[in-house]
Amino acid sequence: MINKFEYTDKNEIIFLDQSLLPLKEKYIKTKDYKDIISAILELKIRGAPLIGIAAAYGVVLGLHHVNAENKRDLFFQFSKLVESFRNTRPTAKNLFYALDRLVRKYKENEDMEMDGIRSLLLDEADMIFDEDIEMCRRIGVNGADLIEPKMNILTHCNTGELAAGGIGTALGIIITAARQAKKVFVYVDETRPLMQGARLTTYELDKNDLDYELITDSMAADLMREQAVDCVLIGADRITSCGDVVNKVGSYSLAVNCNFHKIPFYAAAPSTTIDFEVESGEDIVIEERDPDEVRTVLGMPITSKRVPVLNPAFDMVPHSLVTAIITEYKVHYPPYNFAGSKHLFQSYIQSISHRNDIET
Amino acid sequence: MINKFEYTDKNEIIFLDQSLLPLKEKYIKTKDYKDIISAILELKIRGAPLIGIAAAYGVVLGLHHVNAENKRDLFFQFSKLVESFRNTRPTAKNLFYALDRLVRKYKENEDMEMDGIRSLLLDEADMIFDEDIEMCRRIGVNGADLIEPKMNILTHCNTGELAAGGIGTALGIIITAARQAKKVFVYVDETRPLMQGARLTTYELDKNDLDYELITDSMAADLMREQAVDCVLIGADRITSCGDVVNKVGSYSLAVNCNFHKIPFYAAAPSTTIDFEVESGEDIVIEERDPDEVRTVLGMPITSKRVPVLNPAFDMVPHSLVTAIITEYKVHYPPYNFAGSKHLFQSYIQSISHRNDIET
Repeated sequence: MINKFEYTDKNEIIFLDQSLLPLKEKYIKTKDYKDIISAILELKIRGAPLIGIAAAYGVVLGLHHVNAENKRDLFFQFSKLVESFRNTRPTAKNLFYALDRLVRKYKENEDMEMDGIRSLLLDEADMIFDEDIEMCRRIGVNGADLIEPKMNILTHCNTGELAAGGIGTALGIIITAARQAKKVFVYVDETRPLMQGARLTTYELDKNDLDYELITDSMAADLMREQAVDCVLIGADRITSCGDVVNKVGSYSLAVNCNFHKIPFYAAAPSTTIDFEVESGEDIVIEERDPDEVRTVLGMPITSKRVPVLNPAFDMVPHSLVTAIITEYKVHYPPYNFAGSKHLFQSYIQSISHRNDIET
Repeated sequence: MINKFEYTDKNEIIFLDQSLLPLKEKYIKTKDYKDIISAILELKIRGAPLIGIAAAYGVVLGLHHVNAENKRDLFFQFSKLVESFRNTRPTAKNLFYALDRLVRKYKENEDMEMDGIRSLLLDEADMIFDEDIEMCRRIGVNGADLIEPKMNILTHCNTGELAAGGIGTALGIIITAARQAKKVFVYVDETRPLMQGARLTTYELDKNDLDYELITDSMAADLMREQAVDCVLIGADRITSCGDVVNKVGSYSLAVNCNFHKIPFYAAAPSTTIDFEVESGEDIVIEERDPDEVRTVLGMPITSKRVPVLNPAFDMVPHSLVTAIITEYKVHYPPYNFAGSKHLFQSYIQSISHRNDIET
């Protein structure tokens, strides 16, 4: 396992700076919750599930430096902390899921003193982390059923253990299938602008000793034309109740190309990524990031400084183009109706969380 | 006009190093034909029409340093020179077109002395250059008929005056339409790996004062979903007799996405790009380039050095996905039958070449 994120018993957070990978493995140790906020903004900590986990621990870290005059003030300062994390990145659902859980847990126990609250919320963050590990494991097992021996799988962005608490989502499935001796081959989209595929997915595939080739994003379609791709498997930052999938920009182009070439298009995510309240992916806010991410590559300028740029971090794949969605619960096929099964997911997560045999 | 390539009366070539644009405008002056070969290999000189022109002048330059013992030896050394250019890049047709013209011209006059041959071939290179200028102009006028006022046009790679003798092909059309006061807007694919869109097309659009936005290649599909794109307009490195279009990698993905979104997909090229002898695009050799172009961006490493990479420079758009092809002759619609009209193109080029009023 890659040691990517840890909350220590000295109430500090140690995390791997993913923006420098694979050329540098640099760990950052901090007691300041603002460092976690900027790490999320700058994608030093990234991946929808890991963002949720990091935000939960970030709030706990922040609570250690709060001087509240009374219980009302404590809740006020806690809420400010939560908001500061809520405002980091607008698209990934897992962030809001984790923060909402902390708020709910606090409200259920608002009569407790500071120390009790802190310890309760730390337990909740631990639980979110542990549940993600178990959800990833189950996603891996569920999704591996779709992978046949010697399949050529194309993936986008990074969806492995760097992106999650556990082994990841789409990449977790690929690695699970490989451990089942299915001898898969992976095509890795480099994933401009921030190169998560080139930098992080190749790094994880190397660590797991899998066979792969790196391509630029626009090469994927031609590989499909040559029948070199058996399926596309991606993660998700938000999934709506009808199965629209919001994920790293470039996902939609892959889905259209899969449709044209009659290739299955799969998305994998824990149910913490599902937005049960929203039906259409059109209604999801897509984060527009700094134009300099396109004008430069990892800080090095390519264009003149004034070049006008569009830089949406995500795009939306309508459910009609999604062959199946893999969660910790099962493989879901169309028509997707996640709103109707919200309670099933919730009780399923609770059953995971209360097991005694969580494998970490 | 950008002064990108010049053969001087001192028998030297001065060219703009396009690999350094837009951050540096560096000119290279040389009397050594091998510098032209490496400039083509390293994409300091690039763009299918310009490669043909540069190779023609490169052969003439090389002839100035040949010491032949007799006429037979002269032809032998000329042929070696031609082969060394022929082996630079396998895909663009214009290269072979230009070299074949020099060979034909030489053979028609093989009784002449060295000085006469050199002067004849220099004239032929001049003619290829001049014809390209005029072909570009006509492509611009023909293609601009397809562009309606306020259209949003998406383009890929660089197909402007940096890529050709004249004003270019696809970008030449866009600039011609803009000069007709059609107020077009351009989405520019950055075009990984070598970033010709980000580096060169934005540079040309700035010089021509057009409105545009730069995007990463994988964002194009989502813009189409949002109905922000009215047509896609690209150049070509080779067009087969039935209208299959081989062009910069990423073109195929755009064509599939145009098909899905019911958006016209246009390719523009001079007839010197047409391979009348080959029917299917499947039969065209696609250049596979150095993996380091993907492992790095403009020399800066992104991945570890050993990462396995696929790096085809081009891909192929089958004619069924091509709405129209624009040449200097006219706008061609399916079914394409270029083989049947080869003689029309040839007499058309001759009529261009023998005009007295070529606008340079």
